Amino acid sequence: MNPLTDEKISLPTSNSDQENIDLFLAKHENKKVVVVQGLGFVGAVMSIVCANALTEEYAVIGVDLANEQNYWKIKSINEGHFPIIAQDPKIQEFYNNSRAKENFLATYDPMAYSYADVIIVDINLDVAKDSNKMNDLNGYKVDLNAFKKAMTSIGQHCQEDVLLLVETTVPPGTCQKVVKPIIEEELTKRNLSIEKIKMGHSYERVMPGPQYIDSIQNFYRVYSGIDEKSADATEVFLRTIISTENYPLTRLGNTNATEMAKVLENSYRAMNIAFIVEWTRFAEEAGVNIYEVVKAIRMRPTHKNIMLPGIGVGGYCLTKDPLLASWAKQNLFSGDELQQSEIGVKINDKMPVYAFEFLKKNVVGLNKKKVLLLGVSYRQDVGDTRYTPVEIFYNCLEREGSQIYLHDPHVPFWEEKNIKVPQDLLTQLDTEPDVIVISTGHSLYKKNEVLINKIMEMKPILIYDTIGVFSPQEIETFKQKHQVKILGRGDL
Amino acid sequence: MNPLTDEKISLPTSNSDQENIDLFLAKHENKKVVVVQGLGFVGAVMSIVCANALTEEYAVIGVDLANEQNYWKIKSINEGHFPIIAQDPKIQEFYNNSRAKENFLATYDPMAYSYADVIIVDINLDVAKDSNKMNDLNGYKVDLNAFKKAMTSIGQHCQEDVLLLVETTVPPGTCQKVVKPIIEEELTKRNLSIEKIKMGHSYERVMPGPQYIDSIQNFYRVYSGIDEKSADATEVFLRTIISTENYPLTRLGNTNATEMAKVLENSYRAMNIAFIVEWTRFAEEAGVNIYEVVKAIRMRPTHKNIMLPGIGVGGYCLTKDPLLASWAKQNLFSGDELQQSEIGVKINDKMPVYAFEFLKKNVVGLNKKKVLLLGVSYRQDVGDTRYTPVEIFYNCLEREGSQIYLHDPHVPFWEEKNIKVPQDLLTQLDTEPDVIVISTGHSLYKKNEVLINKIMEMKPILIYDTIGVFSPQEIETFKQKHQVKILGRGDL
Repeated sequence: MNPLTDEKISLPTSNSDQENIDLFLAKHENKKVVVVQGLGFVGAVMSIVCANALTEEYAVIGVDLANEQNYWKIKSINEGHFPIIAQDPKIQEFYNNSRAKENFLATYDPMAYSYADVIIVDINLDVAKDSNKMNDLNGYKVDLNAFKKAMTSIGQHCQEDVLLLVETTVPPGTCQKVVKPIIEEELTKRNLSIEKIKMGHSYERVMPGPQYIDSIQNFYRVYSGIDEKSADATEVFLRTIISTENYPLTRLGNTNATEMAKVLENSYRAMNIAFIVEWTRFAEEAGVNIYEVVKAIRMRPTHKNIMLPGIGVGGYCLTKDPLLASWAKQNLFSGDELQQSEIGVKINDKMPVYAFEFLKKNVVGLNKKKVLLLGVSYRQDVGDTRYTPVEIFYNCLEREGSQIYLHDPHVPFWEEKNIKVPQDLLTQLDTEPDVIVISTGHSLYKKNEVLINKIMEMKPILIYDTIGVFSPQEIETFKQKHQVKILGRGDL
Repeated sequence: MNPLTDEKISLPTSNSDQENIDLFLAKHENKKVVVVQGLGFVGAVMSIVCANALTEEYAVIGVDLANEQNYWKIKSINEGHFPIIAQDPKIQEFYNNSRAKENFLATYDPMAYSYADVIIVDINLDVAKDSNKMNDLNGYKVDLNAFKKAMTSIGQHCQEDVLLLVETTVPPGTCQKVVKPIIEEELTKRNLSIEKIKMGHSYERVMPGPQYIDSIQNFYRVYSGIDEKSADATEVFLRTIISTENYPLTRLGNTNATEMAKVLENSYRAMNIAFIVEWTRFAEEAGVNIYEVVKAIRMRPTHKNIMLPGIGVGGYCLTKDPLLASWAKQNLFSGDELQQSEIGVKINDKMPVYAFEFLKKNVVGLNKKKVLLLGVSYRQDVGDTRYTPVEIFYNCLEREGSQIYLHDPHVPFWEEKNIKVPQDLLTQLDTEPDVIVISTGHSLYKKNEVLINKIMEMKPILIYDTIGVFSPQEIETFKQKHQVKILGRGDL
């Protein structure tokens, strides 16, 4: 099923898509072929960035699996509908360009790899953990099997001198200790040389949202290669798709270094959030307004980056990257764990549970209340619900027995919960909720007069603003109306 | 003994210093009296800042104990020698002014409190832990007894309407739950009112070093009071000594909040250091240059504050403040520990041991080598050796059996080790060391041609630059000479 259109889609019956590939390549005889493996939040957008490369005309083929979860994306791309809804207007523009130039094909046939000059790996590498089950998070599991299988598929088809560029966030050590041996083994099986292959690593810093395209095309990149020629080839390729004049590239000494840089920067953020979460609990215990304290501390230039607590940490990166790193340290190298980074994830994973408990403490009979959640995605102005903290918060409310209503302008369908999310804010406000939770800081909820007026007209209501979308003035207005009680950032 | 002059000093035989106090006060009849409790790194300098207040003429009395550790400071101040050696020329200037105006007296007599309009608490509140013994750091102990005794002494003498301003870094909750009850109890014993007293908290952000005075007079301040009139009185006082036009004051809601802000900002720094320490270990295991990685990550504005590893974390604040906070959370309130902050301190406390192990791995027969440590203070350009990581590093070398030589331009006498530290760099370089460790990043060691030339003339030598005082050019010069091997930042 295509979740965007509800259209039923039957999966292809044959493994081969050779005809379409041939037709496509015939149109682009003298162009270099870039194949992107994975058509998710990174791969799909990376594909259109390559199809709109700055200094080169590429023929781009996106490859994903012909299964229930992914085939609709392939079909959608080839039929004129980009599979990702995003605030960034450049997404549609870039996709339209690629349609006009006919230089972007999507397929499920791994034969595509055999035509590639460059293969970009943008598949997922997940960590299995218990956070959604609200357990004690004592364990997590890094399973490389799907990733290894994808590498094998490339090794079975690729040319011996291809540039294989891994963008996936991987445990440090993966390119050297996992990718390289697999590719070399497969090339050897096919009696090909293992001397000519180029393997690079350059992690993406993609931000789904209003700067989606720019987070690839106009942003700093760090890269490396398993050897000098690989690093050189990676650099030459990146220069064709990134504005390197404004955002200079940084080459690091080896693939371990770039792999580490990626998970290090995300662990840094995750840890800084976890830090403030712990202190927020302390502040609650001591009757201290943590927002006021953080504001005072931020006046010091050295402390400007100190974060503020929210409903939780979500998304695909911060929730798992510290674990990927700690796992690698223990399993690909011979170290012990990254204690602080692991604890950071554990603290963060519990945030939505704390937020729920805080709400419960403030609402008598929450189990009989109507609760409207404004926002289900993990981050403002994006439609990405992967590991959204709102899911855990939702599960808590559900377990409590509350009647839950949802709204999110960017999420028509909540994949993980298999729920349709209403798109009309007014209709949802008309459900006469007892509690409104601002669970994602979408722009739509900020300075929204309709929303504010509607709230002012309501019967006695409690608002739990976990993000701080309401201004001090708006909060003052709410407070003047005795029927509106505000929690969270409203204390500021 | 006065450690600065080696002069033997006999302690006073009487408990009373009334005569000197009377003489002093007679000269300043119409002035407000500010009494500073504690003449250490904060109190001594706070005293001369008050004696040089911006908009008021105060008579300032500094009080400390008449014991072996502190009496020399009292004597020294009254005899024309400021007891702290600092890079900041304003220190001497402010002290000279106070001598000229005769408005700064030091004493050991607690009767001084009875004349005070304002009492500023600048004594220490220490955490006992095992870090110097290189143990497992499973426990630490917060002992409030000395602090409580000091508060009792104030309560026994102070006027009922005094402004008591606590600047000491205390476990959050201390002003409300410890100071207030003690003062009220003592006032009640003396049949005085407990209604008129004003108690404020405003933590200092003093940085011993070239900006010593400015770190008080020209820096942001956060303050609070146990009630509105206390906060108001604190504000009025702070405005007389701080350039509040350029550095606006921030008032927080209660004393718990300001107490928390102080330990929070130091915990934030400590945790950020601990974070990079763990990753540095990982980088070593994976053959990655962590400096190169951090440099690449810092290009992101959100990640600019990411730190670099050094030899360790020292000084009076970062080594204990996270523990004060975690202790308070558990003991003054009913919470559980601040896991991440506690682990941060534990990781940091082990840094010098790792630095030693790293050196040992790189030097065959370290036990028979001459090792010259350049710098023993905990921070560049200061003479403060409290909790310096160099002490643990020194202890490791000593245990190993190495022959240790020292140099520090700011530390003539290393109190904690009871060692005289040679002040002449050339003489120390002439000891023909096998290893030179840059253990503190003093300016003297940077771009120092004499030092560089001397190193170039030496027999085969290893330099372990834990801080990064040598530039890439200098390192290149060293490397061209095969007898000089460089470790640490030199890898950059």
